[in-house]
Amino acid sequence: MTRKHITGFSNPTVKYLRSLRDKKHRKRTGQFLVEGLRLLEDARSSGYLPRELVMAEGRERHELLDRLEAEVAAAGGEILTTTPDILSKITGKSNSQSVIGLFDEFATGLAQLDRSAAPIWLVAQDLRDPGNLGTMLRSCDAVGAGGLILIDDCADPFSAEAVRASMGALFTVALAQARWEEFLPWLRCEPGQLVAASLRDAVPYRAAPYAAPCFLLVGNESQGLPDAYEAECDLRVTMPMKGRADSLNAAVAGAVLAYEVLAALDS
Amino acid sequence: MTRKHITGFSNPTVKYLRSLRDKKHRKRTGQFLVEGLRLLEDARSSGYLPRELVMAEGRERHELLDRLEAEVAAAGGEILTTTPDILSKITGKSNSQSVIGLFDEFATGLAQLDRSAAPIWLVAQDLRDPGNLGTMLRSCDAVGAGGLILIDDCADPFSAEAVRASMGALFTVALAQARWEEFLPWLRCEPGQLVAASLRDAVPYRAAPYAAPCFLLVGNESQGLPDAYEAECDLRVTMPMKGRADSLNAAVAGAVLAYEVLAALDS
Repeated sequence: MTRKHITGFSNPTVKYLRSLRDKKHRKRTGQFLVEGLRLLEDARSSGYLPRELVMAEGRERHELLDRLEAEVAAAGGEILTTTPDILSKITGKSNSQSVIGLFDEFATGLAQLDRSAAPIWLVAQDLRDPGNLGTMLRSCDAVGAGGLILIDDCADPFSAEAVRASMGALFTVALAQARWEEFLPWLRCEPGQLVAASLRDAVPYRAAPYAAPCFLLVGNESQGLPDAYEAECDLRVTMPMKGRADSLNAAVAGAVLAYEVLAALDS
Repeated sequence: MTRKHITGFSNPTVKYLRSLRDKKHRKRTGQFLVEGLRLLEDARSSGYLPRELVMAEGRERHELLDRLEAEVAAAGGEILTTTPDILSKITGKSNSQSVIGLFDEFATGLAQLDRSAAPIWLVAQDLRDPGNLGTMLRSCDAVGAGGLILIDDCADPFSAEAVRASMGALFTVALAQARWEEFLPWLRCEPGQLVAASLRDAVPYRAAPYAAPCFLLVGNESQGLPDAYEAECDLRVTMPMKGRADSLNAAVAGAVLAYEVLAALDS
Protein backbone atom coordinates (compact mmCIF):
# COMPACT_ATOMS: atom_id res chain seq x y z
CA MET A 1 0.00 0.00 0.00
CA THR A 2 1.61 3.22 -1.09
CA ARG A 3 0.99 6.53 0.55
CA LYS A 4 1.68 9.78 -1.13
CA HIS A 5 2.85 12.60 1.10
CA ILE A 6 1.79 16.11 0.19
CA THR A 7 3.36 19.27 1.51
CA GLY A 8 2.94 22.92 0.69
CA PHE A 9 -0.18 25.02 0.84
CA SER A 10 0.03 25.60 -2.91
CA ASN A 11 0.06 21.91 -3.79
CA PRO A 12 -2.66 21.39 -6.46
CA THR A 13 -4.30 18.58 -4.48
CA VAL A 14 -4.53 20.81 -1.42
CA LYS A 15 -6.00 23.57 -3.53
CA TYR A 16 -8.48 21.19 -5.12
CA LEU A 17 -9.65 19.71 -1.82
CA ARG A 18 -9.89 23.14 -0.27
CA SER A 19 -12.00 24.41 -3.16
CA LEU A 20 -14.67 21.84 -2.23
CA ARG A 21 -15.66 23.96 0.74
CA ASP A 22 -17.50 26.05 -1.83
CA LYS A 23 -20.80 24.76 -3.13
CA LYS A 24 -19.93 26.13 -6.56
CA HIS A 25 -16.87 23.90 -6.81
CA ARG A 26 -18.71 20.89 -5.44
CA LYS A 27 -21.36 21.29 -8.14
CA ARG A 28 -18.75 21.69 -10.84
CA THR A 29 -16.68 18.69 -9.82
CA GLY A 30 -19.39 16.46 -8.37
CA GLN A 31 -17.22 15.71 -5.36
CA PHE A 32 -17.41 16.49 -1.64
CA LEU A 33 -15.46 15.97 1.56
CA VAL A 34 -16.30 13.98 4.66
CA GLU A 35 -14.42 14.98 7.79
CA GLY A 36 -13.52 12.73 10.66
CA LEU A 37 -13.06 9.04 11.27
CA ARG A 38 -16.50 8.57 12.76
CA LEU A 39 -18.32 9.79 9.65
CA LEU A 40 -15.90 7.97 7.36
CA GLU A 41 -16.59 4.77 9.26
CA ASP A 42 -20.34 5.38 8.95
CA ALA A 43 -19.84 5.76 5.20
CA ARG A 44 -17.71 2.61 4.96
CA SER A 45 -20.14 0.49 6.92
CA SER A 46 -22.88 1.68 4.54
CA GLY A 47 -20.81 0.65 1.53
CA TYR A 48 -19.24 3.98 0.58
CA LEU A 49 -15.49 4.37 0.30
CA PRO A 50 -13.68 7.62 -0.45
CA ARG A 51 -11.71 7.99 -3.65
CA GLU A 52 -9.00 9.67 -1.63
CA LEU A 53 -8.22 9.42 2.05
CA VAL A 54 -6.15 12.26 3.50
CA MET A 55 -4.58 11.73 6.92
CA ALA A 56 -2.53 13.96 9.17
CA GLU A 57 0.94 12.54 9.57
CA GLY A 58 1.84 11.44 13.06
CA ARG A 59 -1.72 10.77 14.10
CA GLU A 60 -2.17 7.83 16.43
CA ARG A 61 -2.94 4.50 14.84
CA HIS A 62 -6.52 3.38 15.11
CA GLU A 63 -7.96 0.01 14.21
CA LEU A 64 -10.87 1.53 12.27
CA LEU A 65 -8.56 3.82 10.36
CA ASP A 66 -6.24 0.94 9.48
CA ARG A 67 -9.15 -1.03 8.09
CA LEU A 68 -10.48 1.97 6.20
CA GLU A 69 -7.07 2.65 4.71
CA ALA A 70 -6.73 -0.95 3.56
CA GLU A 71 -10.18 -1.00 1.98
CA VAL A 72 -9.66 2.31 0.19
CA ALA A 73 -6.34 1.10 -1.21
CA ALA A 74 -7.85 -2.26 -2.25
CA ALA A 75 -10.60 -0.41 -4.09
CA GLY A 76 -8.00 1.58 -6.03
CA GLY A 77 -8.34 4.75 -3.97
CA GLU A 78 -5.49 7.02 -3.09
CA ILE A 79 -3.96 7.37 0.38
CA LEU A 80 -2.43 10.74 1.13
CA THR A 81 -0.66 12.03 4.20
CA THR A 82 -0.05 15.64 5.02
CA THR A 83 0.59 17.98 7.94
CA PRO A 84 -2.11 18.91 10.48
CA ASP A 85 -1.74 22.53 9.31
CA ILE A 86 -2.53 21.66 5.72
CA LEU A 87 -5.48 19.53 6.80
CA SER A 88 -6.78 22.54 8.75
CA LYS A 89 -6.32 24.67 5.68
CA ILE A 90 -8.39 22.23 3.62
CA THR A 91 -11.28 22.05 6.07
CA GLY A 92 -11.09 25.66 7.21
CA LYS A 93 -11.25 24.57 10.84
CA SER A 94 -8.48 25.43 13.25
CA ASN A 95 -9.20 22.30 15.24
CA SER A 96 -9.45 20.02 12.27
CA GLN A 97 -10.27 16.34 12.22
CA SER A 98 -7.15 14.38 11.47
CA VAL A 99 -8.60 12.46 8.55
CA ILE A 100 -10.84 13.42 5.64
CA GLY A 101 -12.19 11.57 2.64
CA LEU A 102 -13.04 12.66 -0.89
CA PHE A 103 -16.31 11.25 -2.23
CA ASP A 104 -18.32 11.46 -5.41
CA GLU A 105 -21.68 13.12 -4.92
CA PHE A 106 -24.68 10.81 -5.34
CA ALA A 107 -27.25 11.06 -8.08
CA THR A 108 -30.26 12.86 -6.60
CA GLY A 109 -32.94 12.49 -9.25
CA LEU A 110 -36.47 11.55 -8.21
CA ALA A 111 -36.45 8.62 -10.65
CA GLN A 112 -34.00 6.68 -8.51
CA LEU A 113 -36.31 6.67 -5.48
CA ASP A 114 -38.20 3.48 -4.71
CA ARG A 115 -41.25 4.90 -3.00
CA SER A 116 -42.56 1.48 -2.09
CA ALA A 117 -39.44 0.91 -0.02
CA ALA A 118 -40.68 2.85 2.99
CA PRO A 119 -43.98 4.08 4.50
CA ILE A 120 -42.63 7.57 5.33
CA TRP A 121 -40.70 10.15 3.32
CA LEU A 122 -39.63 13.60 4.41
CA VAL A 123 -39.92 16.46 1.95
CA ALA A 124 -38.33 19.84 2.67
CA GLN A 125 -39.02 22.97 0.69
CA ASP A 126 -36.52 25.83 0.56
CA LEU A 127 -34.77 24.53 3.67
CA ARG A 128 -31.85 26.92 4.00
CA ASP A 129 -29.99 25.73 7.07
CA PRO A 130 -27.53 22.89 6.37
CA GLY A 131 -27.71 21.84 10.03
CA ASN A 132 -31.48 21.43 9.75
CA LEU A 133 -31.00 19.50 6.52
CA GLY A 134 -28.53 17.08 8.10
CA THR A 135 -30.74 16.73 11.16
CA MET A 136 -33.67 15.77 8.91
CA LEU A 137 -31.55 13.09 7.23
CA ARG A 138 -30.72 11.77 10.69
CA SER A 139 -34.41 11.76 11.63
CA CYS A 140 -35.21 9.90 8.39
CA ASP A 141 -32.83 7.16 9.43
CA ALA A 142 -34.36 7.02 12.91
CA VAL A 143 -38.00 6.68 11.83
CA GLY A 144 -37.18 4.31 8.98
CA ALA A 145 -38.15 6.85 6.35
CA GLY A 146 -37.12 6.14 2.79
CA GLY A 147 -35.30 9.41 2.52
CA LEU A 148 -35.36 13.15 2.17
CA ILE A 149 -36.63 14.97 -0.91
CA LEU A 150 -35.32 18.53 -1.22
CA ILE A 151 -37.65 20.86 -3.07
CA ASP A 152 -36.69 24.14 -4.72
CA ASP A 153 -33.74 26.06 -3.22
CA CYS A 154 -32.50 24.08 -0.26
CA ALA A 155 -29.09 24.10 1.37
CA ASP A 156 -26.50 21.80 -0.17
CA PRO A 157 -26.71 18.30 1.36
CA PHE A 158 -23.02 17.75 0.52
CA SER A 159 -21.76 20.70 2.59
CA ALA A 160 -19.56 19.83 5.55
CA GLU A 161 -22.17 21.10 7.99
CA ALA A 162 -25.02 19.07 6.50
CA VAL A 163 -22.89 15.92 6.33
CA ARG A 164 -21.84 16.36 9.96
CA ALA A 165 -25.39 17.03 11.21
CA SER A 166 -26.61 13.92 9.38
CA MET A 167 -24.34 11.81 11.61
CA GLY A 168 -23.80 9.41 8.74
CA ALA A 169 -27.43 9.25 7.62
CA LEU A 170 -26.39 10.82 4.31
CA PHE A 171 -25.09 7.33 3.50
CA THR A 172 -28.07 5.34 4.80
CA VAL A 173 -31.16 7.10 3.46
CA ALA A 174 -32.06 8.18 -0.06
CA LEU A 175 -31.73 11.78 -1.12
CA ALA A 176 -33.41 13.56 -4.00
CA GLN A 177 -33.51 17.13 -5.26
CA ALA A 178 -36.24 18.55 -7.48
CA ARG A 179 -38.23 21.61 -8.31
CA TRP A 180 -41.83 21.58 -7.11
CA GLU A 181 -42.93 21.43 -10.77
CA GLU A 182 -41.10 18.11 -11.16
CA PHE A 183 -41.96 16.76 -7.75
CA LEU A 184 -45.73 17.07 -7.98
CA PRO A 185 -46.21 15.06 -11.21
CA TRP A 186 -43.77 12.42 -9.90
CA LEU A 187 -45.73 12.20 -6.64
CA ARG A 188 -49.09 11.89 -8.39
CA CYS A 189 -47.98 9.12 -10.76
CA GLU A 190 -48.44 6.55 -8.02
CA PRO A 191 -50.33 6.35 -4.73
CA GLY A 192 -48.92 8.58 -2.02
CA GLN A 193 -50.31 10.97 0.57
CA LEU A 194 -48.86 14.46 0.73
CA VAL A 195 -49.09 15.88 4.26
CA ALA A 196 -48.17 19.42 5.26
CA ALA A 197 -47.35 20.76 8.67
CA SER A 198 -49.58 23.79 8.47
CA LEU A 199 -51.53 26.35 10.44
CA ARG A 200 -54.27 26.85 7.88
CA ASP A 201 -57.32 24.66 7.43
CA ALA A 202 -55.53 21.92 9.34
CA VAL A 203 -56.56 19.02 11.57
CA PRO A 204 -54.76 18.08 14.80
CA TYR A 205 -51.65 16.04 14.01
CA ARG A 206 -52.49 13.39 16.61
CA ALA A 207 -54.67 10.70 15.08
CA ALA A 208 -54.97 12.36 11.69
CA PRO A 209 -55.78 9.88 8.90
CA TYR A 210 -52.24 9.15 7.72
CA ALA A 211 -51.75 6.61 4.92
CA ALA A 212 -48.58 5.03 3.57
CA PRO A 213 -46.59 6.01 1.66
CA CYS A 214 -46.84 9.29 3.48
CA PHE A 215 -44.81 12.28 2.24
CA LEU A 216 -44.33 14.83 5.03
CA LEU A 217 -43.78 18.29 3.65
CA VAL A 218 -42.02 20.93 5.76
CA GLY A 219 -41.46 24.50 4.58
CA ASN A 220 -38.79 27.13 4.70
CA GLU A 221 -37.45 28.20 8.11
CA SER A 222 -38.89 31.70 8.02
CA GLN A 223 -41.60 31.66 5.36
CA GLY A 224 -43.16 28.26 5.85
CA LEU A 225 -44.82 26.69 2.81
CA PRO A 226 -46.27 28.72 -0.07
CA ASP A 227 -50.08 28.69 -0.04
CA ALA A 228 -50.17 27.02 -3.44
CA TYR A 229 -48.06 24.14 -2.13
CA GLU A 230 -50.25 23.67 0.91
CA ALA A 231 -53.31 23.64 -1.32
CA GLU A 232 -51.90 20.61 -3.17
CA CYS A 233 -51.59 18.58 0.01
CA ASP A 234 -53.95 15.72 0.77
CA LEU A 235 -53.85 16.46 4.47
CA ARG A 236 -52.86 19.50 6.49
CA VAL A 237 -52.04 18.87 10.11
CA THR A 238 -51.18 21.19 12.94
CA MET A 239 -49.26 20.72 16.16
CA PRO A 240 -50.28 22.44 19.41
CA MET A 241 -48.55 25.80 19.89
CA LYS A 242 -49.07 26.68 23.53
CA GLY A 243 -46.76 29.67 23.68
CA ARG A 244 -46.21 32.93 21.93
CA ALA A 245 -44.57 31.52 18.81
CA ASP A 246 -46.52 29.99 15.95
CA SER A 247 -43.94 27.59 14.62
CA LEU A 248 -41.25 25.08 15.50
CA ASN A 249 -37.76 24.68 14.12
CA ALA A 250 -38.26 23.02 10.71
CA ALA A 251 -36.24 19.90 11.57
CA VAL A 252 -38.08 19.57 14.88
CA ALA A 253 -41.48 19.90 13.19
CA GLY A 254 -40.52 17.24 10.65
CA ALA A 255 -39.38 14.83 13.35
CA VAL A 256 -42.37 15.29 15.66
CA LEU A 257 -44.65 14.69 12.69
CA ALA A 258 -42.64 11.71 11.42
CA TYR A 259 -42.74 10.00 14.83
CA GLU A 260 -46.49 10.55 14.98
CA VAL A 261 -46.95 9.02 11.52
CA LEU A 262 -44.70 6.11 12.45
CA ALA A 263 -46.85 5.36 15.49
CA ALA A 264 -50.08 5.77 13.51
CA LEU A 265 -48.99 3.46 10.69
CA ASP A 266 -47.59 0.85 13.10
CA SER A 267 -50.78 0.58 15.11
CA MET B 1 -35.31 61.86 21.93
CA THR B 2 -31.58 62.26 21.48
CA ARG B 3 -29.49 59.91 19.43
CA LYS B 4 -25.78 59.62 19.85
CA HIS B 5 -23.81 58.92 16.71
CA ILE B 6 -20.71 56.79 17.04
CA THR B 7 -17.95 56.52 14.48
CA GLY B 8 -14.58 54.88 14.41
CA PHE B 9 -13.73 51.23 14.96
CA SER B 10 -11.75 52.11 18.06
CA ASN B 11 -14.63 53.89 19.77
CA PRO B 12 -14.91 52.42 23.30
CA THR B 13 -18.61 51.64 22.88
CA VAL B 14 -17.88 49.75 19.68
CA LYS B 15 -15.11 47.84 21.41
CA TYR B 16 -17.35 47.07 24.37
CA LEU B 17 -20.23 45.80 22.25
CA ARG B 18 -17.89 43.79 20.10
CA SER B 19 -16.33 42.16 23.16
CA LEU B 20 -19.74 40.65 24.00
CA ARG B 21 -19.29 38.16 21.17
CA ASP B 22 -17.04 36.33 23.64
CA LYS B 23 -18.67 34.30 26.36
CA LYS B 24 -15.92 35.38 28.73
CA HIS B 25 -16.87 39.02 28.38
CA ARG B 26 -20.57 38.30 28.61
CA LYS B 27 -19.99 36.49 31.90
CA ARG B 28 -17.84 39.30 33.22
CA THR B 29 -20.23 42.09 32.31
CA GLY B 30 -23.55 40.25 32.58
CA GLN B 31 -24.69 41.71 29.28
CA PHE B 32 -25.46 40.29 25.86
CA LEU B 33 -26.54 41.38 22.40
CA VAL B 34 -29.69 40.67 20.46
CA GLU B 35 -29.43 41.10 16.71
CA GLY B 36 -32.20 42.08 14.36
CA LEU B 37 -35.53 43.85 14.60
CA ARG B 38 -37.54 40.65 14.68
CA LEU B 39 -35.84 39.35 17.83
CA LEU B 40 -35.86 42.80 19.41
CA GLU B 41 -39.58 43.03 18.78
CA ASP B 42 -40.06 39.56 20.34
CA ALA B 43 -38.17 40.81 23.39
CA ARG B 44 -40.19 44.03 23.58
CA SER B 45 -43.51 42.25 23.29
CA SER B 46 -42.41 39.97 26.14
CA GLY B 47 -41.56 42.98 28.31
CA TYR B 48 -37.81 43.25 27.72
CA LEU B 49 -36.23 46.43 26.45
CA PRO B 50 -32.56 46.88 25.61
CA ARG B 51 -30.42 49.28 27.63
CA GLU B 52 -28.92 50.44 24.37
CA LEU B 53 -30.28 50.28 20.86
CA VAL B 54 -27.72 50.56 18.07
CA MET B 55 -29.00 51.28 14.57
CA ALA B 56 -27.28 51.57 11.23
CA GLU B 57 -27.62 55.09 9.91
CA GLY B 58 -29.62 55.40 6.73
CA ARG B 59 -31.69 52.31 7.32
CA GLU B 60 -35.25 52.54 6.15
CA ARG B 61 -37.81 53.63 8.68
CA HIS B 62 -39.95 50.87 10.10
CA GLU B 63 -42.99 51.24 12.29
CA LEU B 64 -41.82 48.57 14.74
CA LEU B 65 -38.41 50.15 15.00
CA ASP B 66 -39.90 53.58 15.63
CA ARG B 67 -41.99 52.20 18.47
CA LEU B 68 -39.04 50.29 19.90
CA GLU B 69 -36.86 53.37 19.76
CA ALA B 70 -39.48 55.44 21.55
CA GLU B 71 -39.97 52.85 24.27
CA VAL B 72 -36.24 52.41 24.85
CA ALA B 73 -35.80 56.16 25.14
CA ALA B 74 -38.79 56.48 27.47
CA ALA B 75 -37.31 53.79 29.71
CA GLY B 76 -34.05 55.75 29.93
CA GLY B 77 -32.15 53.63 27.44
CA GLU B 78 -29.64 54.98 25.01
CA ILE B 79 -30.17 55.27 21.25
CA LEU B 80 -27.04 55.05 19.15
CA THR B 81 -26.54 55.27 15.43
CA THR B 82 -23.49 54.12 13.55
CA THR B 83 -22.35 52.98 10.13
CA PRO B 84 -23.30 49.59 8.66
CA ASP B 85 -19.57 48.74 8.65
CA ILE B 86 -19.23 49.30 12.35
CA LEU B 87 -22.39 47.33 13.05
CA SER B 88 -20.89 44.46 11.05
CA LYS B 89 -17.71 44.76 13.06
CA ILE B 90 -19.69 44.51 16.30
CA THR B 91 -21.65 41.42 15.26
CA GLY B 92 -18.86 39.80 13.26
CA LYS B 93 -21.22 39.19 10.36
CA SER B 94 -20.55 40.63 6.96
CA ASN B 95 -24.25 40.74 6.24
CA SER B 96 -25.22 42.21 9.56
CA GLN B 97 -28.67 43.03 10.85
CA SER B 98 -29.15 46.76 10.83
CA VAL B 99 -30.17 47.04 14.45
CA ILE B 100 -28.91 45.43 17.64
CA GLY B 101 -29.81 45.77 21.30
CA LEU B 102 -27.79 45.48 24.49
CA PHE B 103 -29.50 43.55 27.29
CA ASP B 104 -28.72 42.50 30.83
CA GLU B 105 -28.46 38.75 31.25
CA PHE B 106 -31.23 37.20 33.34
CA ALA B 107 -30.76 35.55 36.69
CA THR B 108 -30.65 31.81 36.05
CA GLY B 109 -30.76 30.28 39.50
CA LEU B 110 -33.05 27.30 40.17
CA ALA B 111 -34.70 29.13 43.06
CA GLN B 112 -36.47 31.55 40.74
CA LEU B 113 -38.30 28.75 38.90
CA ASP B 114 -41.96 28.22 39.73
CA ARG B 115 -42.26 24.52 39.03
CA SER B 116 -46.01 24.54 39.56
CA ALA B 117 -46.34 26.99 36.68
CA ALA B 118 -46.15 24.32 33.97
CA PRO B 119 -46.62 20.56 33.56
CA ILE B 120 -43.48 20.09 31.43
CA TRP B 121 -39.88 21.24 31.84
CA LEU B 122 -36.94 20.49 29.58
CA VAL B 123 -33.60 19.69 31.16
CA ALA B 124 -30.43 19.52 29.05
CA GLN B 125 -27.15 18.14 30.30
CA ASP B 126 -23.84 19.19 28.73
CA LEU B 127 -25.63 20.46 25.65
CA ARG B 128 -22.79 21.95 23.63
CA ASP B 129 -24.42 23.29 20.51
CA PRO B 130 -25.92 26.78 20.92
CA GLY B 131 -28.26 26.12 17.99
CA ASN B 132 -29.66 23.05 19.78
CA LEU B 133 -30.00 25.09 22.95
CA GLY B 134 -31.96 27.85 21.23
CA THR B 135 -34.09 25.27 19.44
CA MET B 136 -34.96 23.68 22.78
CA LEU B 137 -36.04 27.05 24.16
CA ARG B 138 -38.25 27.43 21.10
CA SER B 139 -39.73 23.96 21.66
CA CYS B 140 -40.37 24.87 25.32
CA ASP B 141 -42.45 27.80 24.19
CA ALA B 142 -44.35 25.63 21.71
CA VAL B 143 -45.32 22.85 24.13
CA GLY B 144 -46.08 25.27 26.94
CA ALA B 145 -43.15 24.05 29.01
CA GLY B 146 -42.12 26.16 31.96
CA GLY B 147 -38.61 26.48 30.69
CA LEU B 148 -35.22 24.98 30.08
CA ILE B 149 -32.84 23.92 32.84
CA LEU B 150 -29.21 23.67 31.73
CA ILE B 151 -27.16 21.17 33.67
CA ASP B 152 -23.37 21.08 33.93
CA ASP B 153 -21.38 22.47 30.99
CA CYS B 154 -23.87 23.63 28.40
CA ALA B 155 -23.44 26.20 25.65
CA ASP B 156 -24.11 29.79 26.64
CA PRO B 157 -27.81 30.65 26.23
CA PHE B 158 -26.87 34.30 25.72
CA SER B 159 -24.69 33.68 22.67
CA ALA B 160 -25.90 35.21 19.41
CA GLU B 161 -26.48 31.77 17.90
CA ALA B 162 -28.57 30.49 20.82
CA VAL B 163 -30.62 33.69 20.96
CA ARG B 164 -31.28 33.51 17.23
CA ALA B 165 -32.24 29.82 17.28
CA SER B 166 -34.64 30.47 20.16
CA MET B 167 -36.64 32.76 17.86
CA GLY B 168 -37.51 34.94 20.81
CA ALA B 169 -38.32 32.12 23.23
CA LEU B 170 -35.37 33.22 25.38
CA PHE B 171 -37.73 36.00 26.49
CA THR B 172 -40.87 33.89 26.97
CA VAL B 173 -39.75 30.80 28.88
CA ALA B 174 -37.75 30.48 32.08
CA LEU B 175 -34.09 29.57 31.99
CA ALA B 176 -31.95 28.09 34.74
CA GLN B 177 -28.37 26.88 34.98
CA ALA B 178 -27.10 24.48 37.63
CA ARG B 179 -24.70 21.68 38.36
CA TRP B 180 -26.26 18.23 38.67
CA GLU B 181 -25.36 18.26 42.37
CA GLU B 182 -27.57 21.32 42.86
CA PHE B 183 -30.30 20.25 40.50
CA LEU B 184 -31.07 16.88 42.05
CA PRO B 185 -31.77 18.11 45.62
CA TRP B 186 -33.83 20.98 44.20
CA LEU B 187 -35.84 18.53 42.10
CA ARG B 188 -36.46 16.17 45.02
CA CYS B 189 -37.66 18.88 47.39
CA GLU B 190 -41.08 18.82 45.78
CA PRO B 191 -43.06 16.40 43.63
CA GLY B 192 -41.73 16.04 40.10
CA GLN B 193 -41.01 13.19 37.72
CA LEU B 194 -37.57 13.00 36.13
CA VAL B 195 -37.73 11.30 32.71
CA ALA B 196 -34.72 10.41 30.58
CA ALA B 197 -34.60 9.70 26.88
CA SER B 198 -32.53 6.57 27.12
CA LEU B 199 -31.62 3.32 25.46
CA ARG B 200 -31.04 1.36 28.64
CA ASP B 201 -33.71 -0.30 30.74
CA ALA B 202 -36.29 1.91 29.09
CA VAL B 203 -39.98 1.63 28.24
CA PRO B 204 -41.47 2.74 24.92
CA TYR B 205 -42.04 6.48 24.97
CA ARG B 206 -45.58 6.18 23.66
CA ALA B 207 -48.02 5.76 26.53
CA ALA B 208 -45.36 5.68 29.24
CA PRO B 209 -46.75 6.70 32.66
CA TYR B 210 -45.89 10.40 32.54
CA ALA B 211 -46.90 12.60 35.48
CA ALA B 212 -46.84 16.37 35.88
CA PRO B 213 -44.66 18.21 36.59
CA CYS B 214 -42.55 16.16 34.22
CA PHE B 215 -38.86 17.04 33.82
CA LEU B 216 -37.52 15.71 30.51
CA LEU B 217 -33.79 15.13 30.64
CA VAL B 218 -31.76 15.05 27.43
CA GLY B 219 -28.02 14.37 27.37
CA ASN B 220 -24.95 15.61 25.58
CA GLU B 221 -24.90 15.47 21.77
CA SER B 222 -22.24 12.80 21.50
CA GLN B 223 -22.08 11.12 24.91
CA GLY B 224 -25.71 11.03 25.94
CA LEU B 225 -26.42 10.99 29.67
CA PRO B 226 -24.01 9.63 32.26
CA ASP B 227 -25.18 6.29 33.68
CA ALA B 228 -25.40 7.75 37.16
CA TYR B 229 -27.78 10.46 35.94
CA GLU B 230 -30.00 7.95 34.17
CA ALA B 231 -30.11 5.85 37.32
CA GLU B 232 -31.62 8.80 39.21
CA CYS B 233 -34.51 9.09 36.77
CA ASP B 234 -38.00 8.01 37.71
CA LEU B 235 -38.72 6.85 34.19
CA ARG B 236 -36.52 5.97 31.24
CA VAL B 237 -38.19 6.02 27.87
CA THR B 238 -36.97 5.08 24.43
CA MET B 239 -38.03 6.14 20.96
CA PRO B 240 -38.05 3.72 18.02
CA MET B 241 -34.77 3.73 16.07
CA LYS B 242 -35.54 1.98 12.81
CA GLY B 243 -32.29 2.73 11.04
CA ARG B 244 -28.61 2.32 11.58
CA ALA B 245 -28.18 5.14 14.09
CA ASP B 246 -29.02 4.78 17.76
CA SER B 247 -29.83 8.37 18.58
CA LEU B 248 -31.56 11.53 17.42
CA ASN B 249 -30.34 15.10 17.43
CA ALA B 250 -30.66 16.23 21.07
CA ALA B 251 -33.11 19.05 20.34
CA VAL B 252 -35.21 16.73 18.17
CA ALA B 253 -35.30 14.05 20.87
CA GLY B 254 -36.39 16.62 23.45
CA ALA B 255 -39.17 17.93 21.23
CA VAL B 256 -40.53 14.52 20.19
CA LEU B 257 -40.64 13.52 23.84
CA ALA B 258 -42.15 16.83 24.97
CA TYR B 259 -44.96 16.57 22.43
CA GLU B 260 -45.68 13.02 23.56
CA VAL B 261 -45.85 14.13 27.20
CA LEU B 262 -48.06 17.05 26.26
CA ALA B 263 -50.51 14.69 24.57
CA ALA B 264 -50.36 12.19 27.44
CA LEU B 265 -51.00 14.82 30.12
CA ASP B 266 -53.78 16.48 28.11
CA SER B 267 -55.72 13.25 27.60
